Amino acid sequence: MVKPSRPDFKVDGTFNAGVARHRNEIVMLVRIAESVISVSGQGVAVPTLSQDGGTWRLGLTAFRRNDPAFDFSDPRVIKSVADPRNAFLTSMSHLRIARSTNGVTFRVDDYPFLFPANRYEQFGCEDPRITQIENRYYINYTSVSNLGISTSLAVTDDFISIERLGVIFSPDNRDVCLFPRRIDGHYWALHRPAPLHFGAPEIWVAKSPDLIHWGGHRIVAERRGNGWEANKIGGGAPMLETKKGWLQVYHGVDGRQRYCLGALLLDLHDPTIVIRRLDTPIAEPTEPYEITGFFNNVVFACGALITGDELQVYYGAADRVVALGTVALEDLWRAMRI
Amino acid sequence: MVKPSRPDFKVDGTFNAGVARHRNEIVMLVRIAESVISVSGQGVAVPTLSQDGGTWRLGLTAFRRNDPAFDFSDPRVIKSVADPRNAFLTSMSHLRIARSTNGVTFRVDDYPFLFPANRYEQFGCEDPRITQIENRYYINYTSVSNLGISTSLAVTDDFISIERLGVIFSPDNRDVCLFPRRIDGHYWALHRPAPLHFGAPEIWVAKSPDLIHWGGHRIVAERRGNGWEANKIGGGAPMLETKKGWLQVYHGVDGRQRYCLGALLLDLHDPTIVIRRLDTPIAEPTEPYEITGFFNNVVFACGALITGDELQVYYGAADRVVALGTVALEDLWRAMRI
Repeated sequence: MVKPSRPDFKVDGTFNAGVARHRNEIVMLVRIAESVISVSGQGVAVPTLSQDGGTWRLGLTAFRRNDPAFDFSDPRVIKSVADPRNAFLTSMSHLRIARSTNGVTFRVDDYPFLFPANRYEQFGCEDPRITQIENRYYINYTSVSNLGISTSLAVTDDFISIERLGVIFSPDNRDVCLFPRRIDGHYWALHRPAPLHFGAPEIWVAKSPDLIHWGGHRIVAERRGNGWEANKIGGGAPMLETKKGWLQVYHGVDGRQRYCLGALLLDLHDPTIVIRRLDTPIAEPTEPYEITGFFNNVVFACGALITGDELQVYYGAADRVVALGTVALEDLWRAMRI
Repeated sequence: MVKPSRPDFKVDGTFNAGVARHRNEIVMLVRIAESVISVSGQGVAVPTLSQDGGTWRLGLTAFRRNDPAFDFSDPRVIKSVADPRNAFLTSMSHLRIARSTNGVTFRVDDYPFLFPANRYEQFGCEDPRITQIENRYYINYTSVSNLGISTSLAVTDDFISIERLGVIFSPDNRDVCLFPRRIDGHYWALHRPAPLHFGAPEIWVAKSPDLIHWGGHRIVAERRGNGWEANKIGGGAPMLETKKGWLQVYHGVDGRQRYCLGALLLDLHDPTIVIRRLDTPIAEPTEPYEITGFFNNVVFACGALITGDELQVYYGAADRVVALGTVALEDLWRAMRI
């Protein structure tokens, strides 16, 4: 359904999409993961940016599959055996626009909206979230390079042109969820640092005077129990304002790398306070397209809307497709006992 | 030479000290690492904060050395075998003041100046840097907890009272070096994120409107070569203003965890630009007290002063003691060919 950005590329997945209302449309920004069409059984080439004068240009890095200097066991990453921190992604992601009038049927553009273009995006741009703040659309996305996994910000008014605003959270930090308005004079965001030495990827909150500079970092939700969110947790869709509080659809990961969706409710006046957190997931990978894909057993949300009394969650399934799930807010509040 | 903070604690090391000129004294803020005096051969207790009502209080967590659920092989950390991200430090550090009139002979206080006191400092406060900005003394330090290794900021006017300003860089991020004045209207800092998945700990630069909120993150120096700075690098002393540029005494680590000091010179008007970087270290662990200590083969600077034409580097040696090394700036510029 989606055209690759180059004739020698194939599309491996169209997943983890942000959504927003813009004029009379639902605009979706979808992560397109592409890889190089294999031309020989033993060779493998991966797309990477490299610097050419002052400009970063797309090129290919070639490997032989029988090269003992590299580890090919993870389908997503090729790692140097001598220095596993020296790694390459097998696919490169960019962001593309899809449009809909009903929120279900989407027309996908044939060309990229945001394509990797600098040092921090050398391996790709992933997992876009769209947040409308004061009539501008802020897009935060994961910028991946051999410097690590960081979060960058961009802004658009019309979903035609886009302005990059740089790295807002340094490596490793992803799954950033902006709040759609100021609270107590500040902009706010959930973010998900991934500590190296000890501790686990968990959900923090930070504030900002301008969406560019972030501080006041505090932990807001930790991994929990022995089940679906025991291994790590991270933000999902941008924050949704409801009468009951700020609603966050987040993801939890268990010890076998299975991704589920959970629900968290933060205080409207102080987003460092958790009002409720559901013990059980609101979605688990159960359908064939959630169980089997590029990375199996994943439901992972980057976008959600509230229409009337219904929550609509757009989520990536098995790192391959975008799916839609809905729930009546009343049912969610009842489950949360609020 | 230094009293423990409690009678059941012993001092394991007094190292990694920040320095500043205050009135007619050189004030040093030194990291004091303490552990619990062992009362039995098989038992080991580690100091940790735990929450008691709304307050974080110092307590002891006890282990049996023959408990197969924990890994005691690293003298610095006790790790859960089932979940190595669940870890405890064997020692807890706090910050204490030492004072000198000549920069060589110091009187050390008998009591802490900054003692761990919140969630982010559960395992200790480490590696203080002091930066005088507009007549206030900003102290950034490493706040360590089971959430990871973050950087916190505090401020003092008199080295008697201190105000905590919270976490300024989320986990894992340490080795923050502030610039002593605004450049182009912003405050600036070097920081050292440690990515989890790939990439290595390296030196980034960020800017801030207020020292609390940080953004505009850019890589400024990467690890290099196969030798003394091949494994990781990070900031050392706070930035020193010289006629030639912003001088940074940083640390480099080789593949065998040996820590050396290097010199980096950044552009006075644009601190994202590297003017010079010495190929060889300015200090290597060669003396007995640098080779053998709590963690062997370490020279690691958190403070430096320029007096006349001399650079004075206060550095921790083998995670045990504070040492002083000097070099004529002229010799440094000659080595840098600038």
